[in-house]
Amino acid sequence: METHTPGSTPSITVDCGHVLVVGGGIGGIGAALALRRSGADVTLVERAHEFGEVGAGLQMAPNATRILERWGLLDKLLEVGVTPQFMVFRDAVTGEEILRQDLQGEFRERFGAPYIVAHRTDLHRILLEAAVEAGVTMKNDVTVTGYATVDGRGSVRTADDSVLVADAVIGADGLRSTLRSELSADEPVPSGYVAYRGALPISEVTSAADMESVVVWLGPHCHLVQYPLRKGNMFNTVAVFQSPAFLRGEEEWGSEDELEEAYSACVPQVRAALANLGRTRSWPMFDREPIESWVKDRLLLVGDAAHPMLQYLAQGACQALEDAALLEDLAAATEAFPANAAAWDSILGDFNADRAPRTARVQRVARTWGESWHVDQRIPKLLRNMLFKAAGSSDIGQYIDWLYADSEATKELSFQGVQH
Amino acid sequence: METHTPGSTPSITVDCGHVLVVGGGIGGIGAALALRRSGADVTLVERAHEFGEVGAGLQMAPNATRILERWGLLDKLLEVGVTPQFMVFRDAVTGEEILRQDLQGEFRERFGAPYIVAHRTDLHRILLEAAVEAGVTMKNDVTVTGYATVDGRGSVRTADDSVLVADAVIGADGLRSTLRSELSADEPVPSGYVAYRGALPISEVTSAADMESVVVWLGPHCHLVQYPLRKGNMFNTVAVFQSPAFLRGEEEWGSEDELEEAYSACVPQVRAALANLGRTRSWPMFDREPIESWVKDRLLLVGDAAHPMLQYLAQGACQALEDAALLEDLAAATEAFPANAAAWDSILGDFNADRAPRTARVQRVARTWGESWHVDQRIPKLLRNMLFKAAGSSDIGQYIDWLYADSEATKELSFQGVQH
Repeated sequence: METHTPGSTPSITVDCGHVLVVGGGIGGIGAALALRRSGADVTLVERAHEFGEVGAGLQMAPNATRILERWGLLDKLLEVGVTPQFMVFRDAVTGEEILRQDLQGEFRERFGAPYIVAHRTDLHRILLEAAVEAGVTMKNDVTVTGYATVDGRGSVRTADDSVLVADAVIGADGLRSTLRSELSADEPVPSGYVAYRGALPISEVTSAADMESVVVWLGPHCHLVQYPLRKGNMFNTVAVFQSPAFLRGEEEWGSEDELEEAYSACVPQVRAALANLGRTRSWPMFDREPIESWVKDRLLLVGDAAHPMLQYLAQGACQALEDAALLEDLAAATEAFPANAAAWDSILGDFNADRAPRTARVQRVARTWGESWHVDQRIPKLLRNMLFKAAGSSDIGQYIDWLYADSEATKELSFQGVQH
Repeated sequence: METHTPGSTPSITVDCGHVLVVGGGIGGIGAALALRRSGADVTLVERAHEFGEVGAGLQMAPNATRILERWGLLDKLLEVGVTPQFMVFRDAVTGEEILRQDLQGEFRERFGAPYIVAHRTDLHRILLEAAVEAGVTMKNDVTVTGYATVDGRGSVRTADDSVLVADAVIGADGLRSTLRSELSADEPVPSGYVAYRGALPISEVTSAADMESVVVWLGPHCHLVQYPLRKGNMFNTVAVFQSPAFLRGEEEWGSEDELEEAYSACVPQVRAALANLGRTRSWPMFDREPIESWVKDRLLLVGDAAHPMLQYLAQGACQALEDAALLEDLAAATEAFPANAAAWDSILGDFNADRAPRTARVQRVARTWGESWHVDQRIPKLLRNMLFKAAGSSDIGQYIDWLYADSEATKELSFQGVQH
């Protein structure tokens, strides 16, 4: 085990008790709430001066809304979110509808929870309020710079030379995780795709929008997603396209000019929707290669720090909540939790063993799923469109049970065809 | 109307009466039989010294076997053919089965006729015997060199300077049709793919073959088809691959060396099957662009002369039989057929109007179908395999009703996705 070197003795050491969570995004707050619900004393530290989320809408599939329901938070999200009637896929070049999946009725029954679209800030706020209410200690302006195991406990050093110790440290510091470097030298992998987003009051949306569906337009090296937010008072648009500048190897990529050009082959309805996007900020899309171990002594990575993924399956937040739910399950199955600190070794190990294969699969399938959206040649486009149509007229479960069904059922199911 | 030029006055003119059919392949004999059954006097001329068919096995789908049944020939074909239990598609690189379509039971019921695989020579012989028995006049060693309309009747000149006249001339002279040049200046289109074939006694087939199925192995720029023939005493193998020499623009393409190389990425079972192929002859695969008109005065093109197609839908012979069946239907609906020679104008026009759109669709879908078999990149292969799996678990009718169902039903059905 490492110790902090003598020359850099910190000015102050704070004992956080059972759990220290590093990172106040959806994954960190989820994990903090879950462990607090299990009886642990939890401190959560966040680098930013305020808690918050950037971005626009996000999709919560049943595998995540089941967890919100367990936590008593589903109704709160339903109050501000939208439960779309359909998930619709269209060919962005021809306009043709290629799949219309009902998200109500049988779908909701099959997975035992609703499909919800909501503003990212709303989900974040609901989780944050629940964590505060549950008694999680929250600290802003704390930048964690490294981890060490000290006397068998987890310990992090901060940018202001403090040391925070706890029985376990949960690293939820996102895609560009500092704590991941304790476990792996890997770097974020740029996809070459960049996202522009916009969430506008519905009166400002000029196009005749489908207000009951999540609509995904699939184009050559681009796609566009549209759905309503906030009880239909807002309309969310996400445009994701491949940057030619990235392909040329340039440092700066994904400009507004590239945005306009990327959709030139698409139907007017898609091109018009670009007006609904914010232009002051864009999101280059990254993920990472799956890694086998998220555990170093008493450090555990969760959420994007552990398994950042491309957004094509809309599972980033959902998988972070799955992480949290499993922490809660493992705590519940542990005798004398959280007093028995030695139990963390098996909790973290079991967590890793359970979650790593699943999230690696989600990471890999998300990449492949995106590639299949963005095909640009005649035969692949035809195969994609025919596949979507065939999927729509067959039992959709063969494609989505592995992802959306509850974990017991998942063990019996598999995603036919996309295994890796 | 043209007449033969004075300087080349033929030595002899033969009046064939109602119908002259040019070409003694499956299409020509089928048309001759159909029109003879309708009461016409029919003469069929064939360039070769003997009637016959080269090649190995052929597949007769229900749209064709229904016609054989109408003609009382289905039982004869069943005596020598095989009704496979399954049509199986496999990924030639992974060996994975991606589709298993039952060709018995519901399939046979749905289409009202069996799916049969048989030796080409057997089908040809059965049709030839039926045509002779029905009273078609057969002449070998007749090479037709051109068509003219003389006194409102059809007329062809032959290589030995004879002239054959009839109320109508049916041009069934195949892919490299001489008579098509009366209507179109188009040329056969090389696909760059070449076929090797083999039909061996079953004892010589070393690999453990599936004796109840048509098995199609799909590989990168290649495929391999295997099925039993002659009550399971023979085994048919067809290997079709893209020639690198063709892609390089060379005159000679599709060598035996290319054959071996083309399957190098495939599973051992596929590579071993190449030993079952004859090596002395290969078939470069051609089709033509669809043309709108097959009619010039009293000349009508049918079969490959009218609509040559790539073999991916296994419909070349089937569509030729559909041609024949429609001729029979139109004759039956014509008052005073065949005495009323003026009725040929509407018969040929109606035939063209009915058949050209359908066969153009088969020609186009066959090309697309082949391209989707031969994809070589990761995502297109994945989409193809997933599509085949999805099709296998959904109502297969949405893909094949347009082709196999009887023509009345066909008008209500369409091939979802592959419209052109």
